[in-house]
Amino acid sequence: MASPPPATVDARGYLEDVRERVDRWLDAALPRAGTGPGRLAEAMRYSVFAGGKRLRPAMVLAACEAVGGDPRAALPFAGAVELVHTYSLVHDDLPSMDDDDLRRGKPTSHRVFGEATAILAGDALHSLAFELILDRVEPPTLACGLARDLACAAGVGGMVGGQVEDLASTGQKPDEAHLERMHAGKTAALFAASCEGGGRAGGGTPARLEALRRFGRELGLAFQIVDDVLDVTGTAESLGKTPGKDRRATKMTYVALEGVPAARARARRRLEAALAALATLPAPAALTALARYVVERDR
Amino acid sequence: MASPPPATVDARGYLEDVRERVDRWLDAALPRAGTGPGRLAEAMRYSVFAGGKRLRPAMVLAACEAVGGDPRAALPFAGAVELVHTYSLVHDDLPSMDDDDLRRGKPTSHRVFGEATAILAGDALHSLAFELILDRVEPPTLACGLARDLACAAGVGGMVGGQVEDLASTGQKPDEAHLERMHAGKTAALFAASCEGGGRAGGGTPARLEALRRFGRELGLAFQIVDDVLDVTGTAESLGKTPGKDRRATKMTYVALEGVPAARARARRRLEAALAALATLPAPAALTALARYVVERDR
Repeated sequence: MASPPPATVDARGYLEDVRERVDRWLDAALPRAGTGPGRLAEAMRYSVFAGGKRLRPAMVLAACEAVGGDPRAALPFAGAVELVHTYSLVHDDLPSMDDDDLRRGKPTSHRVFGEATAILAGDALHSLAFELILDRVEPPTLACGLARDLACAAGVGGMVGGQVEDLASTGQKPDEAHLERMHAGKTAALFAASCEGGGRAGGGTPARLEALRRFGRELGLAFQIVDDVLDVTGTAESLGKTPGKDRRATKMTYVALEGVPAARARARRRLEAALAALATLPAPAALTALARYVVERDR
Repeated sequence: MASPPPATVDARGYLEDVRERVDRWLDAALPRAGTGPGRLAEAMRYSVFAGGKRLRPAMVLAACEAVGGDPRAALPFAGAVELVHTYSLVHDDLPSMDDDDLRRGKPTSHRVFGEATAILAGDALHSLAFELILDRVEPPTLACGLARDLACAAGVGGMVGGQVEDLASTGQKPDEAHLERMHAGKTAALFAASCEGGGRAGGGTPARLEALRRFGRELGLAFQIVDDVLDVTGTAESLGKTPGKDRRATKMTYVALEGVPAARARARRRLEAALAALATLPAPAALTALARYVVERDR
């Protein structure tokens, strides 16, 4: 890189900048509204552009920078990660799963487009993520590595497995091992793949990729604990979704396990473990700022 | 290859042989029953081993042979294609889509495992298909090509798009252009990717891959026309699903467009177009036999 990165980074400013770049990329990558069958393209765009924070793409780009890479090399992967994240939200919100009416402050996909189109839009986003990585990333060894990591994070050992754990946890007595397994799958797997993939696109060494993976995993676990806390302490306006829903749905959460103060302390410990993993990286400023933001956010 | 392939191949014997090889591969690739969260592994296995004909894997392997390749090189792709096909059946059968109770003669996934697990098992099969190609296929240029073709066939321009067309066609006046678009997406896209990918794994030249792609597309269109016909002429026992369902659901079909004899003649024309595309390939015997079987089958 031409000049050393700044020692501290403003997370909100970084996220704003990432949103602009990633949204432009996603806008060009998604099928045009009004084209293709039915309202499929509209449904895909609706959920992708419903106002997410673009936290995962930001971690991809920041992880690429952290190993001294040019973040432009990681942009297709950043976009693909957001598509997989969005597909998982659309499916998780379905009536047969979490049955959510609001997501990011807007009616969920199935409320707007109907259940069939929501399921299919999720499926299409899922396929498109792989198509774009494999089509846009060079060389093929890098494309393969990124797509494989993403597929692992999305599947049985990651997001799908975590969602199954989540559904199975409803009404159960809070159990620390179950909670960690569920959060590891639902969230930490994609956080870890985002960070490792960003580092991979930036040409990171195996040791640095391993550090980024550990960072992502710890931060993902912290993120979900904070989500549990915000469900109790947040408002519909700040969250963009219905608060208190976990308790009413008798979901297994860290708040139910140990109360808000202990859960907050746990999230801070996870944050410290995440930051410790960054110690050997050459340019971790943006990742560090994002990590602090994740744990200190109020939405 | 050591010896020239036989001039004619018995399609049923070939399918039996493929089923054995592919099923062994799938059995090793799928998560073990009793492992992982909830009944996810069971649901994935239930649908994969519910008695499909393994027609698409057979086309992958036969296309590999058709360009003079060793079909063992195409086995991971053959398995992945079957996983994507299975995922699409699980989602298409859901209550919000085709609302089917029977598939391949057994209760559909959502009838056995509930809707949430069925959706998630489909999602997990979808991710696993890509994970396996990217993990098991060498070199990376081949893995990338195969995974990209599969993602394209699965997405908006393929299976998802075709399913949206299908749902939108219900109760509509039969329209030839709509029918072809719907069948091209629902079926022909994966047939084409199967044949092209098999040829790719076999080291086929670009011209031969293009021929295989055309073959697969024409055969896929023929296959769906035959499906429309069998829905009218078949029995529940021979079909393994409820016959007459298209008409009761006022689905748009070729039978509704032009009646059984004209639809049959159309399928035969598609078959001839498919076979013509094979003319320049060195060893098309197995593909030829499979193509004739597809159009002449009674289930």
